Amino acid sequence: MENNQHTASILVIGNEILSGRTQDRHVQFIAKDLSEIGVELREVAIIPDEEDIIIERLNHFRKKYDYVFTTGGIGPTHDDITAASIAKAFGVKLKRSEKAAKMIKHRYKEQDAHLNEDVFKMADIPENGELIINNISGAPGFRVENVFVFAGVPSVMKSMFKDAKTIICSSNGKQQIISNTFTIFVGESRVAKILRELQIAFPNLQIGSYPFMKNRKWCSHIVVRGVNERDIQEASNKLKECFYNNKIEFKVE
Amino acid sequence: MENNQHTASILVIGNEILSGRTQDRHVQFIAKDLSEIGVELREVAIIPDEEDIIIERLNHFRKKYDYVFTTGGIGPTHDDITAASIAKAFGVKLKRSEKAAKMIKHRYKEQDAHLNEDVFKMADIPENGELIINNISGAPGFRVENVFVFAGVPSVMKSMFKDAKTIICSSNGKQQIISNTFTIFVGESRVAKILRELQIAFPNLQIGSYPFMKNRKWCSHIVVRGVNERDIQEASNKLKECFYNNKIEFKVE
Repeated sequence: MENNQHTASILVIGNEILSGRTQDRHVQFIAKDLSEIGVELREVAIIPDEEDIIIERLNHFRKKYDYVFTTGGIGPTHDDITAASIAKAFGVKLKRSEKAAKMIKHRYKEQDAHLNEDVFKMADIPENGELIINNISGAPGFRVENVFVFAGVPSVMKSMFKDAKTIICSSNGKQQIISNTFTIFVGESRVAKILRELQIAFPNLQIGSYPFMKNRKWCSHIVVRGVNERDIQEASNKLKECFYNNKIEFKVE
Repeated sequence: MENNQHTASILVIGNEILSGRTQDRHVQFIAKDLSEIGVELREVAIIPDEEDIIIERLNHFRKKYDYVFTTGGIGPTHDDITAASIAKAFGVKLKRSEKAAKMIKHRYKEQDAHLNEDVFKMADIPENGELIINNISGAPGFRVENVFVFAGVPSVMKSMFKDAKTIICSSNGKQQIISNTFTIFVGESRVAKILRELQIAFPNLQIGSYPFMKNRKWCSHIVVRGVNERDIQEASNKLKECFYNNKIEFKVE
């Protein structure tokens, strides 16, 4: 991929994913949306609700990538330790945000929900944090430098990501990542040589083969991905030509 | 969780997950199966098909956890670099396995499929590797020490994992990880104090709260997880008692 693309990483924080109780859906959602705004997702870590490992991965990611998104662990119960761990990673204190407390109070009143002291744990954020709007349930996420901290509940995460995206887009201005996909109805080894040569001819594109089985026969999705539309078009034309010449049945997706 | 449980990690290798093209389903499948045989999944990394990062994460995981499972990148095309990267991580050479080549040839013959030199790339494994059976499409996975290397295609991965499990079970002999789940029909902040105190009383259990929305109302799954059945039962009874005393509507899952 082009060298000047912005890069991102995701830290999925939650024992419920690691125990197999919950199927993660955040990674694909965020990955797709990032492609659209030209940010390349480079790495994901799924880790338990434990301070040491949260701090270690967070400090690694925030130095290596332009953006870090964390999901999970910002609720009101004892196992929600993300906010405190992030404050520690940045060497700052947790502080009650009066603005966040107001947002929470307002939403709880609206929904006639039970308000107790534990609820306000969700208003304690790192002292250099900026709030991220949560249109679903009030309690906000937050951003510290290049780290965006989201809730783990999918609808809430999506609402927060939408808010975060406006910040990223305005500071980004990079090209959208686009792709062409072909399905071939033979095993991928049939096109291994073709793809190898195409990758050499187009080093700035990502050329991938993703096999699958259909009616007990091997097929594969061939993906040509990058930011330069002309290159993608040229590589795709070359690929089609090779398919024709080698009598390989294919479909453009 | 108990200190003597065996631990595991997963390395999902594949640009197709990071681009959002493919929804990962390996993590949940492996996580659930590991729970059944008493192995605790501690960490997952989703990384691109790039040698440096594969080697770095692999060397970290294999030293830190009892088992590492990798998925993806062992096909015949240019973007399949997992086997070569793993050999490098262990400081050994890739070597053509005649046994693997035979397995591949046999299956290709059976399926009357096109056989070329690229196919046999799948028979090149680290020289100290042991084959893992693939009942679906022939080309085997392999194991090097505590690292199990699986294909990325779900049906093939599952077949390989089944073979790997017999090795793990025979060297493991640990207790199954079990859990009780309760659904509460109020926001989790209502039970934050109860859960905090329960976690202190049962430090060897993992007590988690996983909120969700139903009919625009907050609910939560409360999970009590561990290996000691008696403790789990006792903690669950205590929890039910607290729910009754605090008039919190709940359901045992």
